[in-house]
Amino acid sequence: MFDLTLIGIGTGNPNHLTYQGARAIRTADLILIPRKGENKADLVGLREEIITQVTDTPPLIAYFDIPKRRVDDGYLRGVDDWHDAIALRWQKAISAHPQARNVALLIWGDPSLYDSSLRIAARLTPKPQTQVIPGITALQALTAAHAIPINDLGAPYVVTTGRRIRDEGWPPDATTAAVMLDGECAFQNLEMQDYDIWWGAYVGMKEELLISGPLADVSVQILETRARARTDHGWIMDIYLLKKRVI
Amino acid sequence: MFDLTLIGIGTGNPNHLTYQGARAIRTADLILIPRKGENKADLVGLREEIITQVTDTPPLIAYFDIPKRRVDDGYLRGVDDWHDAIALRWQKAISAHPQARNVALLIWGDPSLYDSSLRIAARLTPKPQTQVIPGITALQALTAAHAIPINDLGAPYVVTTGRRIRDEGWPPDATTAAVMLDGECAFQNLEMQDYDIWWGAYVGMKEELLISGPLADVSVQILETRARARTDHGWIMDIYLLKKRVI
Repeated sequence: MFDLTLIGIGTGNPNHLTYQGARAIRTADLILIPRKGENKADLVGLREEIITQVTDTPPLIAYFDIPKRRVDDGYLRGVDDWHDAIALRWQKAISAHPQARNVALLIWGDPSLYDSSLRIAARLTPKPQTQVIPGITALQALTAAHAIPINDLGAPYVVTTGRRIRDEGWPPDATTAAVMLDGECAFQNLEMQDYDIWWGAYVGMKEELLISGPLADVSVQILETRARARTDHGWIMDIYLLKKRVI
Repeated sequence: MFDLTLIGIGTGNPNHLTYQGARAIRTADLILIPRKGENKADLVGLREEIITQVTDTPPLIAYFDIPKRRVDDGYLRGVDDWHDAIALRWQKAISAHPQARNVALLIWGDPSLYDSSLRIAARLTPKPQTQVIPGITALQALTAAHAIPINDLGAPYVVTTGRRIRDEGWPPDATTAAVMLDGECAFQNLEMQDYDIWWGAYVGMKEELLISGPLADVSVQILETRARARTDHGWIMDIYLLKKRVI
């Protein structure tokens, strides 16, 4: 029997960590750290740095390998099977340390936002008591870096994915949309002259890249910057905010 | 000439503060703290506690009174005039300390989300260089407290206000909406049997209250709990997430 704590760690700036997150790291008995083989996007080093930054006596660390996600059987089905497979890795890593009462994971961004740790945790048996510690999201790191509010005064906004923009176009009635998980620059599918964009990659990190302006003017610059950065670093994580011009 | 730093401090839990926020407090020369007269919702004490928690040599603190917002001339016009008036208070408080180079404000939640500090800062003359430090939002504190993700798998969500729900109803095509700035429990205007709600007040604070369930079943409980808490504490800040059932 163990409790599980999902600790939001922000987006790569170790100083995004909250005092609450630091305390949860210090009181954990065991921290699980995911690995993606040679893929630098797993950011193992960053998680280790965050741990040693807040404690001289780090908890036990158990590494687990993230399985590959099948892409041949539909998106949602592939993700569902993938979460099953990850839950098995968690279960195995945890059961190797039966004395651990407080198990924690360091979650990129915030465990509530386009993150599947809560869904994976729900697959564990017995299902652990799960606590969530909020962390700075990429969306907040983006708007902070550009020093802009996300919403217009009193106005709503939509948060969506690159897949949705590609498949369904602009969200109906929206004037502001934040786009996450976009590996393909889905903004190219929009009528670009109608939008302004605030784009960022590696937001909050020392590698941070920012571009903003009328989408039609800066889209090529974003595409080129993104391709080059991805080659240079071996991985990329980017996010953007779009505002539709009111005609 | 001064620089301005808007420091997101989270939602009332002093441990929501990030290391980045703590550093910005320590390097500020002057921190402006708003007061609302006898209104406990100004949370002056909380801001002072956060400052003394991170430094033994606090920066200068200048208090300013938040002017009243006119409500007789349309919502947006009233807010616009109000921001002008607040900017004058900032200007006056800052000009009393001409030696201060790094001026900071401690912003409830995150400066990007339904907060007007960036709009007020843009009214200052000369316009200062403005840096934003992201903080935990009420939305994240809510989902963390309920231990739920905000989005369904790969799905979008809307963030909106109580005013919008009251005046315009449910956002078209949305299945998930987070509602902020709702003084009147606007969910009462919806077809309640179609929704589930995750509600929270004082999220992240020791006074935290949480209610969740089918909206039709828990709406009265929320209304009564909210009214009682508001009377007991003298103020309330609440937020909720609604999910529409897919028929």
